[in-house]
Amino acid sequence: MSAKVPVAIVGANGYSGEELCSILAGHPDVQVMAVTSRQHAGKPVGEVLPRLSSVREFSNLVFIESSMDLLLKCGAEFYFLALPHGLAAEYAVPLWRAGKRIVDLSADFRLRNAEVYREFYGEEHPAVELLPEAIYGLPELHREEIRTAKLVGSAGCYPTSVLLVLVPLLRAGLIDFRDIAVASASGVSGAGRKAEAALLFGECNESLRAYGLPKHRHLSEIEQELSLAASRQVTITFVPHLAPMTRGIHTTIFTRLADGVAEEKILSALESAYADEPFVRVSKNLPDTKNVSGTNFCDISARFDARTGRLILLSTEDNLVKGAAGQAVQNFNLMAGLGETAGLL
Amino acid sequence: MSAKVPVAIVGANGYSGEELCSILAGHPDVQVMAVTSRQHAGKPVGEVLPRLSSVREFSNLVFIESSMDLLLKCGAEFYFLALPHGLAAEYAVPLWRAGKRIVDLSADFRLRNAEVYREFYGEEHPAVELLPEAIYGLPELHREEIRTAKLVGSAGCYPTSVLLVLVPLLRAGLIDFRDIAVASASGVSGAGRKAEAALLFGECNESLRAYGLPKHRHLSEIEQELSLAASRQVTITFVPHLAPMTRGIHTTIFTRLADGVAEEKILSALESAYADEPFVRVSKNLPDTKNVSGTNFCDISARFDARTGRLILLSTEDNLVKGAAGQAVQNFNLMAGLGETAGLL
Amino acid sequence: MSAKVPVAIVGANGYSGEELCSILAGHPDVQVMAVTSRQHAGKPVGEVLPRLSSVREFSNLVFIESSMDLLLKCGAEFYFLALPHGLAAEYAVPLWRAGKRIVDLSADFRLRNAEVYREFYGEEHPAVELLPEAIYGLPELHREEIRTAKLVGSAGCYPTSVLLVLVPLLRAGLIDFRDIAVASASGVSGAGRKAEAALLFGECNESLRAYGLPKHRHLSEIEQELSLAASRQVTITFVPHLAPMTRGIHTTIFTRLADGVAEEKILSALESAYADEPFVRVSKNLPDTKNVSGTNFCDISARFDARTGRLILLSTEDNLVKGAAGQAVQNFNLMAGLGETAGLL
Amino acid sequence: MSAKVPVAIVGANGYSGEELCSILAGHPDVQVMAVTSRQHAGKPVGEVLPRLSSVREFSNLVFIESSMDLLLKCGAEFYFLALPHGLAAEYAVPLWRAGKRIVDLSADFRLRNAEVYREFYGEEHPAVELLPEAIYGLPELHREEIRTAKLVGSAGCYPTSVLLVLVPLLRAGLIDFRDIAVASASGVSGAGRKAEAALLFGECNESLRAYGLPKHRHLSEIEQELSLAASRQVTITFVPHLAPMTRGIHTTIFTRLADGVAEEKILSALESAYADEPFVRVSKNLPDTKNVSGTNFCDISARFDARTGRLILLSTEDNLVKGAAGQAVQNFNLMAGLGETAGLL
Repeated sequence: MSAKVPVAIVGANGYSGEELCSILAGHPDVQVMAVTSRQHAGKPVGEVLPRLSSVREFSNLVFIESSMDLLLKCGAEFYFLALPHGLAAEYAVPLWRAGKRIVDLSADFRLRNAEVYREFYGEEHPAVELLPEAIYGLPELHREEIRTAKLVGSAGCYPTSVLLVLVPLLRAGLIDFRDIAVASASGVSGAGRKAEAALLFGECNESLRAYGLPKHRHLSEIEQELSLAASRQVTITFVPHLAPMTRGIHTTIFTRLADGVAEEKILSALESAYADEPFVRVSKNLPDTKNVSGTNFCDISARFDARTGRLILLSTEDNLVKGAAGQAVQNFNLMAGLGETAGLL
Repeated sequence: MSAKVPVAIVGANGYSGEELCSILAGHPDVQVMAVTSRQHAGKPVGEVLPRLSSVREFSNLVFIESSMDLLLKCGAEFYFLALPHGLAAEYAVPLWRAGKRIVDLSADFRLRNAEVYREFYGEEHPAVELLPEAIYGLPELHREEIRTAKLVGSAGCYPTSVLLVLVPLLRAGLIDFRDIAVASASGVSGAGRKAEAALLFGECNESLRAYGLPKHRHLSEIEQELSLAASRQVTITFVPHLAPMTRGIHTTIFTRLADGVAEEKILSALESAYADEPFVRVSKNLPDTKNVSGTNFCDISARFDARTGRLILLSTEDNLVKGAAGQAVQNFNLMAGLGETAGLL
Repeated sequence: MSAKVPVAIVGANGYSGEELCSILAGHPDVQVMAVTSRQHAGKPVGEVLPRLSSVREFSNLVFIESSMDLLLKCGAEFYFLALPHGLAAEYAVPLWRAGKRIVDLSADFRLRNAEVYREFYGEEHPAVELLPEAIYGLPELHREEIRTAKLVGSAGCYPTSVLLVLVPLLRAGLIDFRDIAVASASGVSGAGRKAEAALLFGECNESLRAYGLPKHRHLSEIEQELSLAASRQVTITFVPHLAPMTRGIHTTIFTRLADGVAEEKILSALESAYADEPFVRVSKNLPDTKNVSGTNFCDISARFDARTGRLILLSTEDNLVKGAAGQAVQNFNLMAGLGETAGLL
Repeated sequence: MSAKVPVAIVGANGYSGEELCSILAGHPDVQVMAVTSRQHAGKPVGEVLPRLSSVREFSNLVFIESSMDLLLKCGAEFYFLALPHGLAAEYAVPLWRAGKRIVDLSADFRLRNAEVYREFYGEEHPAVELLPEAIYGLPELHREEIRTAKLVGSAGCYPTSVLLVLVPLLRAGLIDFRDIAVASASGVSGAGRKAEAALLFGECNESLRAYGLPKHRHLSEIEQELSLAASRQVTITFVPHLAPMTRGIHTTIFTRLADGVAEEKILSALESAYADEPFVRVSKNLPDTKNVSGTNFCDISARFDARTGRLILLSTEDNLVKGAAGQAVQNFNLMAGLGETAGLL
């Protein structure tokens, strides 16, 4: 590798943004040109994010204002947007027009259909004209398109944990697409670094609770990709829970085998699908969030309940890595022609 | 209330046993005559369980051997068995023969059918002759039989969280008994105070994982009681998870409305069923384990997913209280003719 | 006890306020007449604090505005103030003038000297005229004055854990008052239910950190009471830490024996001092926060380091109970002529 | 970099051993030749330690028996011993005789004096003849000797957090060596992966407690190195605590300035001492364990308490990284002539 790829991180103060900085700090082929934060502009990155003080190039970085002018001048070719949905699009449009390549960690460019966005996010899509250009950023599903994409909407945390399990099975017609119910549990970092009383330690410790029922926003991208995989409309039930841990998503899926499918086919189909994938591990053993914490892996397993004929599918991932920042870097590696695992293994 | 009811606690060293001591220490109508522990016989209770040192009558109690001779002589009329399954029956038989009344916190007297016991517990039932005498100890389901029972098999933790939700709905024919799938998550105390590596802090913190698939032992009592409620065999899928908290069970149930039932009926049916129950709270708000921690409450709610036609039912309880020791005391209160909530509110 | 004592709770939405409601809900001799919350006025208590829904009298209570008019009319004789410092005094003054008796959980009436208040709290004391009337609300130190007090400034959480250990030893001249350094660690609930980013689960989990150095506000009341006990000015070093748990304070004190004192004297002096105290437990065993969590106990122990001649003193308490709401109720019990342990054991 | 350095890991099943595997898996200049575990010999590493499945070279590794024969034949030049003290020496002796270079993570080769070992560990030192050959493995203190050492006793977790703070100040004569008291708190992984009831999640969650008073084993190496730094015998008080987190040590030190030293000198002396050190970060901000978790950094700060004249020194580290496996790799890098930060940044 000769020259490093110059990148900028827009909005590095949230949990995903901080994780992104942390991963990029250890990435051998990247040069971070700028890191923005409206709240902390002018402060050294290491003061706001003490984990990153004295870490390689971040030692000398100072947060800059998120002004488009500064961003365009910083010399980056790739821009990571770690911003709330809606706001991300405001940055994506001028960056796109300037010919920059963009990895967006928000939900703004994950949906193909602006009406679905309006239905689930309750507002008009802020940049409809870019939707046809955006690629859904889950490399295991759309690797080739991501390589050449100028704009990637990096897949969400819950969706990744659901799609990596279900898509190969739906593509192969092995499960009943009409009967899918999902119970997921996420660590609290999934809710972001927002100063809300409901996210206080005293509210989340020794607490487990469902939320966002029955129509969590992530359902929209989950169903979009499931429907693509099944070549027909797939509608599912999805129940997210908040669990008393910082990181990790555990997903449990209830479904049924398609007619005539033997239960043994399921695990072997998953193993085949992911045999060459660097970040998906299929195992007979039940997955555990702690085994993927701090990594870009998604662990998958399956069990058949012969008593009821139900198939139980399970997965775990780190919501901030494979569910956010790690996935963004994996997408970026593909876009930049780097090794897909660079900085991630 | 004039005289106090004399009781003995057999096996007070586990989490359920300790919680039982703690509840009975605050019970106005109880006199604890003996507390046993094979491991700690001869030691003051307050030394082994420091929470209980200086707490009323426990100040002067010393653990005794679990010998039947000592137990029969201690003057107790009621015996709480907080022992592993199998062992509990060994104590229940002679106590029964001696005319004592028994609240068993183990699984030994929850099942009516010794063959189901063998199927789920992998061994012969140790006291088949007592099965016809035992009452399933979930007061909200079997209150009147509990009052006069000599032997109560206090309901298990997961079963309580599932049954309190489903039984009223099955009795009223409001849900489809053929389509029930359950995802529960329990705090680590549910696994007992066993010195196993898998239960270490370092293994359970920042960890969420399913276990015991697909045929957890508690399924046997769940299906027994669901089938009674539905007046037909009910078979369900049940996926338990271990969550990084000490106490609490959260249960999420996926099912469907019975034909022709309006979704509004569900919450109102639950509200009616529990209108006069002191320990079941039905609410529109989603339940949270922290709201029931340390209490004998079970909180219940319901949501309808109109997109898929699925009904989502949710409940929370403290696995050591309503799921174990509190429930045992509630059963005892009924058996002894005391106020049902004595020592529990 | 014939009639119940009518009380009001002003500011029940914080952690101490909620704990206070919870304790009073189980208090046999109390009638709660009013509960106030500016934020939640008009809402049922059980909706805002779901733990308390369906709990005895709280079932029917609705939060009222914190207006003095409503408070004076509600029929209460005793008022618990669970408000931020500064604000508490605004309520105390008119209640005092109306002849009501007050238990203040804030810091407003703990200090005898308004200048010390200004030094540590950075503002003028809001009700200097009441300072001579207020009694420092630590029953083990000032029981008799509390009985007849009209206004009690209930002792703070850290101060309780430090004072219960040191005061008997200073009174008896057993330790060197010139050499005292304290390292305390508190659960996150000690910081209150404030929507601050630093208190988020993601910031506090897997985190241990000192804060507030070198002059934490609680030092003011600690040194006031230590100086009273030693009959001379005592100045100490105090380092508070935030630990990743909801409840509990652990205090470790480094000091030295006074000249000529044998180390064996220490534990026996503590045992003598607390032989008849219902809520202080002295033991050879090292204390653990989990043994006092949810209780009004303070556990104390001591060890002598012969290698350096240092004495190590240790204590634990639940910051929300003996460190706040439980202590307030203990003070109230004394003021109202009730049994000191009523509602607390 | 041409050839990779062949290494073996003896005892990879504990927390330090697993962390060591994890770090070495990402080390660019290392080839892992063998990993041993008596308990798991014959099993794939990825099955026992699921975090490591599919991670580079560990994918194909199988645990071997810890037989010296196999170890000597595996082709390694460097041996990491992640074994209990006492057992480590049994492996070190034959490896030494065979001319291998050794990084021992146990306490067996940290002390220069076999009598101190006997005093603190309660048994005879198992390999007295090797003591003169061993170097204390704290690179910031003994870098040059480590480079050429054949046997390094990698420094312990608590000692690292104490020594990195105090040694530069003692060397410079800035603090009073006669007045040092330390309160440290460690995450539970520090106690190892031992199936003991006291380390269960249910015992450690919501728990904070001191232990091992007053003479923790780590005192021996702390005082050895402090005495070296001060050129006189230094004896301190050390109080370790167990905190409810998986990783991290927080250390708070109470001491005093040496006569005539201005408080401003302290932080600047620490900054100078560590200006060129890659893994020690000195800051005005108070350290937090979460900022070093998963890293090889030690964060240090200082505050002066003008009211009492005491100096408060604080540090944080990850007990499994800078306190164990990371430090071992840092030592190894020096011994092998690699970049000191290889695999660690």
